[in-house]
Amino acid sequence: MFKPIGYHLIADIRTDDAVEKKRLEDLSLMRQLLADAADAAGAKCLNIQGHKFGEGQGVTAFAMLAESHISIHSWPEHGFLALDVFMCGSSSEHIQKALAVFASALPTAKINEKCVERDYVGRTT
Amino acid sequence: MFKPIGYHLIADIRTDDAVEKKRLEDLSLMRQLLADAADAAGAKCLNIQGHKFGEGQGVTAFAMLAESHISIHSWPEHGFLALDVFMCGSSSEHIQKALAVFASALPTAKINEKCVERDYVGRTT
Repeated sequence: MFKPIGYHLIADIRTDDAVEKKRLEDLSLMRQLLADAADAAGAKCLNIQGHKFGEGQGVTAFAMLAESHISIHSWPEHGFLALDVFMCGSSSEHIQKALAVFASALPTAKINEKCVERDYVGRTT
Repeated sequence: MFKPIGYHLIADIRTDDAVEKKRLEDLSLMRQLLADAADAAGAKCLNIQGHKFGEGQGVTAFAMLAESHISIHSWPEHGFLALDVFMCGSSSEHIQKALAVFASALPTAKINEKCVERDYVGRTT
């Protein structure tokens, strides 16, 4: 059976809840969620970098994994979080566990997700 | 006209050329290409992080941008580079300029690319 080098989950997450929107400004929380998501997925986290763009504004943060990465970018003013979970040598189920960490912190959010196989160009099954 | 918050280019890049495969091991080169790609796309680079997995092995590197991120993961043994360019407040043409930087360093490579619009769930035009 064909197994790609990596699976890449792309999730566009939106909340209309005021408390959850505030969470999208909280770099410390977002860093913790990245660490928890890496743990949940069974990944080895090499480091986490984060940046907050200013009071009331969004954050960008990135967990570098031995298995690739998890990244987030937030726009609290729109209640929007863009999440990517890219893991090699893993399974799409592991990636779902990483997504679940963010979903549990934003329980009313709507999530639009797709999973992309990352691999050689033109490789066939 | 609908304009998404961000465009996200996903490029799976493969080379069969021995010299180009060696480039995929070179963290210093990959960091430079990330910086050049950010410049080419007109992005503001906040920082670049990189990790090399060992002699003859791949690298992971990430440019954190004011406009989101550029990430790479390489597998030199497969001649494979996974590139992501995610930029908000920009255009798909700017993203193509970032891809062109990597393409010029791997001139014989085949590139399988797609561009995903990142935005609110359920937003309509």
